[in-house]
Amino acid sequence: MTGQLRINGERLWARLMAMGEIGATPAGGCNRQALTDEDKAGRDLFVKWCREAGCKIRVDAIGNVFARRSGTDESLPPVITGSHLDTQPTGGKFDGIYGVLAGLEVIETLNDHDVETLHPIEAVVWTNEEGCRFDTAMMGSAVWAGAMPLQDAYALTDRDNKTVAEELTRIDYQGTHTAYFGPVKAAFEAHIEQGPILEAEQKTVGVVTGVQHMSRHRIVIEGKETHAGPTPMSIRQDPMLALADFLPRLYAMAEQHAPDARLTFGYIHTLPGSSNTVPGQLELTVDIRHPQKAAYDAMIAGYQEYVQQACDERGTPVSMECFWEAPGVEFNADCVNAVRKAVATTGYDSMEIVSGAGHDACNVAAVVPTGMIFIPCKDGLSHNEAESAEPEHVEAGCNVLLHAILERAE
Amino acid sequence: MTGQLRINGERLWARLMAMGEIGATPAGGCNRQALTDEDKAGRDLFVKWCREAGCKIRVDAIGNVFARRSGTDESLPPVITGSHLDTQPTGGKFDGIYGVLAGLEVIETLNDHDVETLHPIEAVVWTNEEGCRFDTAMMGSAVWAGAMPLQDAYALTDRDNKTVAEELTRIDYQGTHTAYFGPVKAAFEAHIEQGPILEAEQKTVGVVTGVQHMSRHRIVIEGKETHAGPTPMSIRQDPMLALADFLPRLYAMAEQHAPDARLTFGYIHTLPGSSNTVPGQLELTVDIRHPQKAAYDAMIAGYQEYVQQACDERGTPVSMECFWEAPGVEFNADCVNAVRKAVATTGYDSMEIVSGAGHDACNVAAVVPTGMIFIPCKDGLSHNEAESAEPEHVEAGCNVLLHAILERAE
Repeated sequence: MTGQLRINGERLWARLMAMGEIGATPAGGCNRQALTDEDKAGRDLFVKWCREAGCKIRVDAIGNVFARRSGTDESLPPVITGSHLDTQPTGGKFDGIYGVLAGLEVIETLNDHDVETLHPIEAVVWTNEEGCRFDTAMMGSAVWAGAMPLQDAYALTDRDNKTVAEELTRIDYQGTHTAYFGPVKAAFEAHIEQGPILEAEQKTVGVVTGVQHMSRHRIVIEGKETHAGPTPMSIRQDPMLALADFLPRLYAMAEQHAPDARLTFGYIHTLPGSSNTVPGQLELTVDIRHPQKAAYDAMIAGYQEYVQQACDERGTPVSMECFWEAPGVEFNADCVNAVRKAVATTGYDSMEIVSGAGHDACNVAAVVPTGMIFIPCKDGLSHNEAESAEPEHVEAGCNVLLHAILERAE
Repeated sequence: MTGQLRINGERLWARLMAMGEIGATPAGGCNRQALTDEDKAGRDLFVKWCREAGCKIRVDAIGNVFARRSGTDESLPPVITGSHLDTQPTGGKFDGIYGVLAGLEVIETLNDHDVETLHPIEAVVWTNEEGCRFDTAMMGSAVWAGAMPLQDAYALTDRDNKTVAEELTRIDYQGTHTAYFGPVKAAFEAHIEQGPILEAEQKTVGVVTGVQHMSRHRIVIEGKETHAGPTPMSIRQDPMLALADFLPRLYAMAEQHAPDARLTFGYIHTLPGSSNTVPGQLELTVDIRHPQKAAYDAMIAGYQEYVQQACDERGTPVSMECFWEAPGVEFNADCVNAVRKAVATTGYDSMEIVSGAGHDACNVAAVVPTGMIFIPCKDGLSHNEAESAEPEHVEAGCNVLLHAILERAE
């Protein structure tokens, strides 16, 4: 019965700490940016551990690393699991790294207990997820999934005008394998949540059902500058009055699409900004997110309708512009179910959750069946040297990953 | 029958233009700031005209000038009417000056037609109404009404550190009479509206019933900076959500107190002002005005209640501060009625109106029965070299002033 199988939490934790030494910052974080000497050292250490675990290493043309444990039928597509080893300049020890080392730990555990699987299992390192040195986040997985041409990725430059291609060659991670996905049975990524929900709900594991659709919009409303005293309300052209109309309607719309809807008015500004003058212009931004496409589309349509309607009624000309958009992801039902079953098998307190941020799994999910597993992180902090996760959560998430992979790899 | 009596519109207009030559600016406005050589020249011209009209001149200790036409009973209190001759640095030809010269024109008209009045009539020039060279607006009338100590006014300095006392002496307008009101039967001030209402309503004369109560308030709401993606709406501390609650309630409150209520949100700002971060702080200002004390007080109470309630409900700590307040004025019923009757006598299109700005009449009204008359000004512009009024409106307002004074002076 593999249901009793558990990973070695101490080994996984020790490897996280060992990896954290590479590019360690004085404040306890990591600076291991993509394709630097530190990234090479991290990759080398990972490859060494994988080889010691009996894996075959394959590196593709964009530097993605695949560490393969054979299945009993090598003609079958593998179950892959991974994340990234690169960090932000003032990043932490867990973001990405956890998902990579959890994949290796699953392989180690299967080895320890002589468990064979029908399908091969591969632990993966995706190149340049952070996009801070070379300005395209989730680059390696994007190339692999066909979302970004290889040559475009190669041509990206850092501040010293070094290209991705040059730096891949320099650190010896420009592999000979095609950077393009082949048949894959299932993909999983374990990750810290990078948000406060699991901690607030005191859950150990999050079953990630998808990633939000998200976009950001700029609203500019024209008013007419008039004196606060003599000008009657009835003849004003007051953009704040239009705001008073649509702001509660938009929040009510988010309520209709609760609990997954996200609506954020981060920036708001009036011109001329004088306390006794009706604003001549009001500018604000709205960030709109929802994991389900239909609900997201309804929110976008509602936003446009309510703002336009309020501004029409108040006689305040308005312009609306979407200045950033990222499509959402709904993870594969079989993979999400595999995670659900794994949670049931291991007995951890869990909840279903939607990712508020992007991950390599978003690119992967576009081409192969994919799922994700979240564990809590302290105060929801990430991209921060103070990023922190509890050893028992690290262990729990990896146990869930183990059983989700076992379910799919048979 | 004095009901047929009309002022000489051409003489009044000619005097307005003549006064406008003193301190004339290239753009057609006036720069005749308080207690400058130009102010002295303007005062001298006014005094000369008044002496030619047979008036006795009295100057008080703060430089207010009273030009008196005797009544048939000199023991009775006078009816006084006036405004100011000083202007903004880039002021116009009408703001203040109109009220002063209209007073003189009433006296000239009574002389022309040998009309005697029971009560004396005085045309008044109030010192330093604009408060731009010496930073206290409506200074002369404030001292006269006991609202400002004479020595405080004397001690005010301009940018060159010259005091009001020095400059009054220098231009020879520090009079020997006490700068303190005595018995007055009634006071009137004719003025351009300095707002757009009469023009919009196509009215020739405004019967001014009062001056708004007004105050400005700063609202600071504390939020919690959180990421727009992962943080559920239900656990956010979002000051914009509190705003969505109270903004429409405040506008609805202004609607309840329409048409005289004024509510203006001129300044609004978020910190950190990032489109994908829930604001950590929201600051905005609200300017609240109403001519009736009860309605004004209700609006202030409503503002405080609705903002506090919304912020309590949304868990966003709030601080509210009143950083400026000016009490309103309800003009004397007898004086307002005298203006109403004068409008009926002269037959001009008129409307009742509330002043959005302060005037010498506000100080005067605190101690003697007072009324005001407005005439339209182009585009509501004032404190601007483009300030403009039509000759027929100038004439109409002065005819109304004539009959209001006649009614009170018997």
